[in-house]
Amino acid sequence: VGIATGRHGCAFDADGLDATAAAACVEGGGALHGGARLPGAADLIAAAASAGPARTAVVIETTPLSVLDGQPAASLLRAALSAGAHVITANKGPIACAWPELRAAARSAGRHLLFEGVVMDGIPVFSLAGDGLPALTITAIRGIVNTTTNYLLAALEEGREATTALADMRARGIAEADPSLDVDGWDAAAKAAALGNVLMDGRLTPAAVARSGVARLTCADARAALEAGCRLKLIMRVERTAQGVTASVAPERVPLDTLFARVNGTMNALTISTDALDDITIVQHGGTLRETAYALVADLVRLWRRIA
Amino acid sequence: VGIATGRHGCAFDADGLDATAAAACVEGGGALHGGARLPGAADLIAAAASAGPARTAVVIETTPLSVLDGQPAASLLRAALSAGAHVITANKGPIACAWPELRAAARSAGRHLLFEGVVMDGIPVFSLAGDGLPALTITAIRGIVNTTTNYLLAALEEGREATTALADMRARGIAEADPSLDVDGWDAAAKAAALGNVLMDGRLTPAAVARSGVARLTCADARAALEAGCRLKLIMRVERTAQGVTASVAPERVPLDTLFARVNGTMNALTISTDALDDITIVQHGGTLRETAYALVADLVRLWRRIA
Repeated sequence: VGIATGRHGCAFDADGLDATAAAACVEGGGALHGGARLPGAADLIAAAASAGPARTAVVIETTPLSVLDGQPAASLLRAALSAGAHVITANKGPIACAWPELRAAARSAGRHLLFEGVVMDGIPVFSLAGDGLPALTITAIRGIVNTTTNYLLAALEEGREATTALADMRARGIAEADPSLDVDGWDAAAKAAALGNVLMDGRLTPAAVARSGVARLTCADARAALEAGCRLKLIMRVERTAQGVTASVAPERVPLDTLFARVNGTMNALTISTDALDDITIVQHGGTLRETAYALVADLVRLWRRIA
Repeated sequence: VGIATGRHGCAFDADGLDATAAAACVEGGGALHGGARLPGAADLIAAAASAGPARTAVVIETTPLSVLDGQPAASLLRAALSAGAHVITANKGPIACAWPELRAAARSAGRHLLFEGVVMDGIPVFSLAGDGLPALTITAIRGIVNTTTNYLLAALEEGREATTALADMRARGIAEADPSLDVDGWDAAAKAAALGNVLMDGRLTPAAVARSGVARLTCADARAALEAGCRLKLIMRVERTAQGVTASVAPERVPLDTLFARVNGTMNALTISTDALDDITIVQHGGTLRETAYALVADLVRLWRRIA
């Protein structure tokens, strides 16, 4: 019934918008039309939620990441929940920065908050904590969760210094125009905070994650690691300690005969340690916008099964 | 309320048995006592189910694997379902040999049939098809699912021929006294059939899986593979074809720079291909009886959540 965009306006029709026409509008660079034009997302949420109790409102949130405060996503999610909508997001910001408040808001509104796309896209990670691994405690999570840095470290091994490699990756659409979120470890830190908060009941934020990026690493570092039988990888770690759940992101030398040394290119991986089973590793072989879109659709199906 | 064993008798008490005392009995080599002694498992199931509608009966089945017909497990599961009990099993036989009938029996009885322990113990594999990966089709599954052959192939690489290596493994408790189920690929074939039946709606049995074991492989084969930059692995494959779901188990040369080449020792791995996402690999780092026991407990929790 409604679509709010960053650059193509915002439309609402309680009887339903024509999605194909809307997509054509946006792809053509124009503004959305059909239904009422509203000033922005907050107005759309209010309009959708006011459709009445006979309707089930679901807000799907995909605004850009703000790694330090999770805004405006966190506020939009809170507004949607308090207006009575269920919420699905692929944005790691609010889960990394404002999880306790959002969980409380969802509980008090009696609405669902789903976000499987936040780490490794549609691969079930957060779902594991529910039906997949009941009756145990997750004690630690470690992983390779940032593709840009994984490419960058491979380039160093191949003898291309970071500046050249990043320029190549921007040209190929792998790295953002401003790759600092990736290169400085912020993206991995936000994922660590989200995983620690949700799966280990932590009280993390991205800023609280001990963070060391890959910007200062050189071809010589990669070569030295290889000579020692290792490969440089940016490793995210979340651990349960006496001081609570802590997290870090830092480059590490990973022995070549281990799984993580083979997590290359667009692959991501998470290893989960528990108090009941030997370690489990989940590997995503590739992630594109298609995988992110699947995560949103999968959450919509899960939501429907829960409320139907 | 009841326990039936292979060598320590069978006891039933509608008011509950003392589990600690029963374990002590069995560990001491004696027969179960307390409550009524019954002739066998079928009688126990009848007694448990007759406790009346106010009770929820759950039968947990862990009889040994019979790879060609899944018996007596399949008959016990059917008897339990038709007597009104929910059923949990860690036995791959009935799921590999009699899945369509068992699924139909569970549906017609309105009871749950859970079996997460059948492949990779408590690691969520079958659960994925439910909440984990909704709204997609699994097109293929490949994996390393048999630990004995994985050890055996590693021994060949290290220059120990199969006969010596198997004797070592028997002494260390890794291989069975009769390792033919593993070495000839039957165990992997049964897992392939179970995965294909449940996750891909196949009509497989272990006997229908194209099967080639590792018994004829030698140190020279392992060395030749290494010289070609590969490692020998017993690979299970399940595929969706125009002729339906087919499966195979055979030794393959796996390139050393891939994940599967690093699935060594007690590790198992499955790679799942779908029509919506790039491949997903799940790796189990180690599996013991503890992991199998967890699978049964986890199924019991899942069952409780579904019926509560």
